[in-house]
Amino acid sequence: MCGTDGCLIKCSSVSCATPENDTKEPSTTINLDHGDPTMYESYWRKMGNKCDITFNGDDSLSYFANGKSLCWFLESKLEEQIKRLHNVVENAIVDDYYIVVGTGSSQLMQAALYALSPTDQLEPISVVSATPFYSSYPEVTDFVKSGLHKWAGDARTFEKNGLYIEFVTSPNNPDGVIREPVVNGNQGKLIYDLAYYWPQYTAITSPANRDVMLFTISKCTGHAGSRIGWALVKDKEVARKMTKFMEISTIGVSKEAQLRAAKILEVVSDSCLDPKMENFFEYSQSLMTDRWQRLRQVVMANDFFVLQKYPLQYCLFTKDFCESHPAFAWLICKGREEEDCQKLLKEHKIHTRSGRRFGSDLRNVRISMLSRDEDFNIFLQRLMAIRGPTNGN
Amino acid sequence: MCGTDGCLIKCSSVSCATPENDTKEPSTTINLDHGDPTMYESYWRKMGNKCDITFNGDDSLSYFANGKSLCWFLESKLEEQIKRLHNVVENAIVDDYYIVVGTGSSQLMQAALYALSPTDQLEPISVVSATPFYSSYPEVTDFVKSGLHKWAGDARTFEKNGLYIEFVTSPNNPDGVIREPVVNGNQGKLIYDLAYYWPQYTAITSPANRDVMLFTISKCTGHAGSRIGWALVKDKEVARKMTKFMEISTIGVSKEAQLRAAKILEVVSDSCLDPKMENFFEYSQSLMTDRWQRLRQVVMANDFFVLQKYPLQYCLFTKDFCESHPAFAWLICKGREEEDCQKLLKEHKIHTRSGRRFGSDLRNVRISMLSRDEDFNIFLQRLMAIRGPTNGN
Repeated sequence: MCGTDGCLIKCSSVSCATPENDTKEPSTTINLDHGDPTMYESYWRKMGNKCDITFNGDDSLSYFANGKSLCWFLESKLEEQIKRLHNVVENAIVDDYYIVVGTGSSQLMQAALYALSPTDQLEPISVVSATPFYSSYPEVTDFVKSGLHKWAGDARTFEKNGLYIEFVTSPNNPDGVIREPVVNGNQGKLIYDLAYYWPQYTAITSPANRDVMLFTISKCTGHAGSRIGWALVKDKEVARKMTKFMEISTIGVSKEAQLRAAKILEVVSDSCLDPKMENFFEYSQSLMTDRWQRLRQVVMANDFFVLQKYPLQYCLFTKDFCESHPAFAWLICKGREEEDCQKLLKEHKIHTRSGRRFGSDLRNVRISMLSRDEDFNIFLQRLMAIRGPTNGN
Repeated sequence: MCGTDGCLIKCSSVSCATPENDTKEPSTTINLDHGDPTMYESYWRKMGNKCDITFNGDDSLSYFANGKSLCWFLESKLEEQIKRLHNVVENAIVDDYYIVVGTGSSQLMQAALYALSPTDQLEPISVVSATPFYSSYPEVTDFVKSGLHKWAGDARTFEKNGLYIEFVTSPNNPDGVIREPVVNGNQGKLIYDLAYYWPQYTAITSPANRDVMLFTISKCTGHAGSRIGWALVKDKEVARKMTKFMEISTIGVSKEAQLRAAKILEVVSDSCLDPKMENFFEYSQSLMTDRWQRLRQVVMANDFFVLQKYPLQYCLFTKDFCESHPAFAWLICKGREEEDCQKLLKEHKIHTRSGRRFGSDLRNVRISMLSRDEDFNIFLQRLMAIRGPTNGN
């Protein structure tokens, strides 16, 4: 990488390849609060009509899918492509697993909580995750004041005896760290949220083979608008209960979204196997590597922030050692404990999510690394301009 | 209609127009438990490529929709076509209403319960509906043991003072009757489930203008596999809370499903306005009229069953008097109270839903009238063969 500010922002061969519009109103706040994965648009645009899918008026009227899956609304084409992609990437075992499809992985988190919560207890089961945890877990667990399960906060300080459910997010959202369960109890049930266990974000060190594993197309290919997630579930009864949850909650999952997701996953697998195609994961990994290098340079040049560091690990997929390039940057303001990093960035028209939302402190923020080039470039420009908290704030 | 048994089953000009396969294994049970609206396939097949919609790989990656709706994930094309269709059919007022889109109307029922439940009460609010009520209401209200709301059964026997929510389903599922609220309380909040308030099922007597009204494409056009429902909501704060529910529950609704639904609704409106097209509602009304006539003849010829009757009403849409032709037949076994109609039909390989599931009694069953022709024909054949309960059962 070259060394000037301008170069940091503008010279990247990857991320500046398809700038749509590099001028935004200076007054517009850049929204990096959500992990909206629009960065991937450039790849899919290049794929041309390879992923086109057309629906006729008489397609998919029925509630039921055409497969013989335990999950009665799961389209067999999607089931096939999910299994194929995991086999190509080697990030999860699929043989002898049940697949349950969901309207994004958020719905599957609720389905997993429903399936794993005992029904014969007077008290709701405690649900925990180690800080910093995904900001939606408390809300998803408690929003309808369920009597089945109750958010109990940081897994590290959880000391209650008895039953619990622990969310293990690996790589972790917000900080990208590889995780194992934290609670040392023998009555725990684990939900592995593996949304980011894909080669563009982290080394694939072994195929995951946990009891309940959640994935989503949003973070794998960028198709967040489709709202397609899937669970790989070892136990038949758990898969059956999760399917029941989906049935009551939404009577299944959109067939259009499932069939399009099948097509997209098919093209991703093809791109990994066909040397004439541009490998999706190599493309997106190089994009992420470039963005992270540029961000690290801005942060190094600015003495006020720190970024999480990640170890080099051997990746089974790329057959090489690589560093993590998480979907979110977990930025830490140096300085006093009461430093409000989210507020500081907001003053500089960068909208991020405060560490507080993740059970962590005000000095931290989570920043999406998956925006369109234009927004990412403006973000770096604005971050570079920050020299410390505004006086009096 | 001609008068022989064979004719009743086979001679209908409408329903036999496109038989796919009139031979099914005699041992196969016909599933009329769900209201799976596959009957409509024949219309959509005739429409050819008028409803085709193609998605490219780079379409709709974002969580966010392109519109400016309060419901941030609602596609503006869908919003536009929902409003247009209600204006064409005159079955609901849309001006000054907020639209919230859902993954089918089941999810919107939960969103409405969430939005209308007080958060400052120690006890969950009571949720009621008059028997026979839609069999999913108790399950949808209670499946995660919510502390916000609790199923309290038949609205007619509800006597608790204070707050309550009443589901008013009109035309009613399962029995097709036009309904008004039943509880005579001043602290009630009402959710109008108007899934069946379309011209093929009932006369459109006036545009509905209730505070919270739920609709679904499943029962309007038959596209149940898309999982698209919508709520028309008068109060901004209620619409905002319903949107929040959707955000936590599934982070919005599939964009593919929304955009295809917009296309389908557009063609339906076009078909009502363009004399060169076959009017969707006229087509489906004639299909329903034919099925109901044939069913009534079978039931009349058989002294063991009774069907619900419906008054003639003037329909603003067809500009004529018409009888209701509900999506479900509510069949009553004559005989003793302990007569189990669902069991009797099951013995004759007709799978229906017992009256018990609707808060009613064993003598009743709900039977889908929306199956494919082949299944409907076999259903009539089998029903005709029943001469009373099997001895000893």
